[in-house]
Amino acid sequence: MNKDEVKAHYLEMAELNLPDMYTEEIRISGDKKALVAGDHFVIDLGNHYVGYFSFVMGYTDAYPDAPVRLAVKFCEGREEIDADFSTYKGTLCPSWLQEELINVDGVGEYRMPRRYAARYVSIRVIYTPKKITLSDFVFTAVTSADRRRLDALDIADAELRDIDRVAVNTLKNCMHRIFEDGPKRDRRLWIGDLRLQALTNYYTFNQSDLVRRCLYLFAASEPDAEGILPAFIYENPTFASGNWHPRDYALLFVVTLCDYYEHTRDRATFFDIYPVAKRQVDSIYGKADESGVIVLQSSFIDWHGELKKITAFNGVYLYTLDRLCRVLTQLGHADADTYKARYGEARAAAFERLYNAKENSFANAYDGYQRSVHAAVWMILGGVISKETAHECLQRCLSDTECPKAVTPYMNHYLVEAMMKIGKEAEAFNYLKDFWGQMVKQGADTFYEVFVPGQPNLSPYGDKLMNSLCHAWSCTPSYFIRRYKRTESGT
Amino acid sequence: MNKDEVKAHYLEMAELNLPDMYTEEIRISGDKKALVAGDHFVIDLGNHYVGYFSFVMGYTDAYPDAPVRLAVKFCEGREEIDADFSTYKGTLCPSWLQEELINVDGVGEYRMPRRYAARYVSIRVIYTPKKITLSDFVFTAVTSADRRRLDALDIADAELRDIDRVAVNTLKNCMHRIFEDGPKRDRRLWIGDLRLQALTNYYTFNQSDLVRRCLYLFAASEPDAEGILPAFIYENPTFASGNWHPRDYALLFVVTLCDYYEHTRDRATFFDIYPVAKRQVDSIYGKADESGVIVLQSSFIDWHGELKKITAFNGVYLYTLDRLCRVLTQLGHADADTYKARYGEARAAAFERLYNAKENSFANAYDGYQRSVHAAVWMILGGVISKETAHECLQRCLSDTECPKAVTPYMNHYLVEAMMKIGKEAEAFNYLKDFWGQMVKQGADTFYEVFVPGQPNLSPYGDKLMNSLCHAWSCTPSYFIRRYKRTESGT
Repeated sequence: MNKDEVKAHYLEMAELNLPDMYTEEIRISGDKKALVAGDHFVIDLGNHYVGYFSFVMGYTDAYPDAPVRLAVKFCEGREEIDADFSTYKGTLCPSWLQEELINVDGVGEYRMPRRYAARYVSIRVIYTPKKITLSDFVFTAVTSADRRRLDALDIADAELRDIDRVAVNTLKNCMHRIFEDGPKRDRRLWIGDLRLQALTNYYTFNQSDLVRRCLYLFAASEPDAEGILPAFIYENPTFASGNWHPRDYALLFVVTLCDYYEHTRDRATFFDIYPVAKRQVDSIYGKADESGVIVLQSSFIDWHGELKKITAFNGVYLYTLDRLCRVLTQLGHADADTYKARYGEARAAAFERLYNAKENSFANAYDGYQRSVHAAVWMILGGVISKETAHECLQRCLSDTECPKAVTPYMNHYLVEAMMKIGKEAEAFNYLKDFWGQMVKQGADTFYEVFVPGQPNLSPYGDKLMNSLCHAWSCTPSYFIRRYKRTESGT
Repeated sequence: MNKDEVKAHYLEMAELNLPDMYTEEIRISGDKKALVAGDHFVIDLGNHYVGYFSFVMGYTDAYPDAPVRLAVKFCEGREEIDADFSTYKGTLCPSWLQEELINVDGVGEYRMPRRYAARYVSIRVIYTPKKITLSDFVFTAVTSADRRRLDALDIADAELRDIDRVAVNTLKNCMHRIFEDGPKRDRRLWIGDLRLQALTNYYTFNQSDLVRRCLYLFAASEPDAEGILPAFIYENPTFASGNWHPRDYALLFVVTLCDYYEHTRDRATFFDIYPVAKRQVDSIYGKADESGVIVLQSSFIDWHGELKKITAFNGVYLYTLDRLCRVLTQLGHADADTYKARYGEARAAAFERLYNAKENSFANAYDGYQRSVHAAVWMILGGVISKETAHECLQRCLSDTECPKAVTPYMNHYLVEAMMKIGKEAEAFNYLKDFWGQMVKQGADTFYEVFVPGQPNLSPYGDKLMNSLCHAWSCTPSYFIRRYKRTESGT
């Protein structure tokens, strides 16, 4: 097959697995108060949902003989209700802010055509010729998550049950035709988020068809000149490839494929997509310096302006090779030995060049002797150090105020994963409760894109109004809780 | 039948005659220039249309990864393009101003759901994350006017041919499920406009089913305590009665029914609706003073703040009785004699009390001795004076700068009708060319709601932005031209 035929095949496979969509109607009758221009009210949906909004317009005395202009604002959080969106000064396009100016022609039902992510709907009457009523509000929530597939969580720990509830809601509200990133302001499919969504999905809704569909969409995407997958694709309304190719995300595509195989044993899909995965891993091989360290700078790792990333990226590479070797071995594939050899070389180089055994730290020349939680986490996940050595190394990073810490829930996932890997399960759950649990205590219905305790106004976009309060990469507590805690329950 | 059954019957009859809708697509491909935030352009449709707008959004370099916010303005006239609608200070609800703020999710075709009246479409890019293109503009014009039914106008006078073209376009753009008033900002069915639209319709598209439907809708409407019809009804999205009951409009409903019968000979409809018509006429009878003059103040006549209306209203009453007598006589109905007698009494009272024979004027005590074009026109149409007497009386009003003149095209219609009645056809056409022809010379595609030569900023709403440039009651030149001029042609 030539390149176009391969792409067509992958797209066709993605189309074969279109998800069913499930809807839930949140109905709020309203008090039918007479409204005039300037009046304002807020509808509380009682939870965070993603979907479509409709209402019924009526009148009290005289028929409104002109269109009625309304400003309708959809708010994920309380703070957005009173915020004036016109003050937005951030870097992302202001059109993401969920505010509409609509003209309603005549009384009756009015359905807004776009999809929104909201807990609150704020409505302001801008112009009306006569007193009107607005009532029978319906928010039709949509998701491809089939909640009949979700098991009740039978554990004693109420705090973890609460965290799980919010995490499941986060995943549900990001599950549509693809695993979306953030339903409010990023409807793309990102590799880094897909990996975490897919993982959590196996332990919650377990809809592996959706994972398969997303793997095929990435397989069909346009790689860069070196064959590296884009970090994201667009799927709605048309399929289009992203134009950023961070190397760590490209490797995590391979991990996602391995996770998929291990959870489904679907050999056909694994081998159909394997050439794409192999290309991601192989592209790294030639990038090692004479010491065997991969010196690629172009990776994401975390949103941290000061972070040096070479050590962490080498960890991602090792983590990926390790997972790929395991699956290829299970499948009896000849490539297993090749990748095992590469893993051995790369691990030895990392231990030799990136690790300072005397200090038990990853301060090294490649990263300007910066120590970071990120480097420690990924070196642990890559198997460079283990057990008590790793625990001490990680703890020292976490307690050192100078040391860059995990900023995103995404990076915090890998921190918890590293704790689990070195057998510190209790510590991992304490960290999980401390980090994700704080959002629950603050009233979160879904987990946020960005959450750094003590920095409530932090935004990667220069304005908190743009932050997404329901974000894919924050859903993984349910993975940890349902994987590691379910066996502890009495059932 | 009780009241509700009668209403249900009339509504059912109206539903039986739903008009077919015809569409015409105006396609403008556009230059696909790369657009960024702040860019602005105007599409000229080449004529005034009423309908729906769509376009195709594309991109040049990178996929736009956020919604694209556009301000789309629909302008009947050039002046609206550069006007800032937020400066509007008029009395009617600003939501009529045809401006939308839309958020376009992703590339591809975008169809705007509302209907607009426009010659120009102005598009401004408010926010876009990347360079976009906008192209393949389609304005899907809609009307219930079936242009296959319209005869070519074979007359030598080019000026009248131009006026007819604009008048026919005006009527066409007001013909939808009902005869609308103004498609930009008043989609109601008004009696005063209906009478003129129906009349012009008989000589152009000749779709009497639409007239019948509108007659039934008024028959089904909610009258006031005295049984007087509302001046207007709403029909879209739901049927609702207006809350203003001017007496002259109620009488013109009777005239409209008589016109309908005379053009269609549809006895069944006439007699089905006759009880409603009879009620309008009979309600006037008891309102005469001891001299036989009707002293009701509540009539429209024209938009003229200084106008005294009693004389004109008595003319409308006489005009109505005259038309009703004629039709009842044709139908051999017993009521004919009753109304003839009433006509005789009312005409005698008007001649005696409202007319000053010495001055050949309608300066009288009822109207504070005000002379007006309106009084003269309606007294002529009511048959109180005729021929050269009437001509002289009218001319003196027209040439007297102190005398209130016709302000609206609606009143100008009746002025021309009065000239025709007294046999001054050439003068009538000169007036028609002078009044409606000036709009054509100014580039009008359709005739305006308000046009007073020398007062370009006049508005009944306190702001010219709200004026309707395509208005039902301005379409009657085609009635005069096609009724009186066609017989002069060589064919």
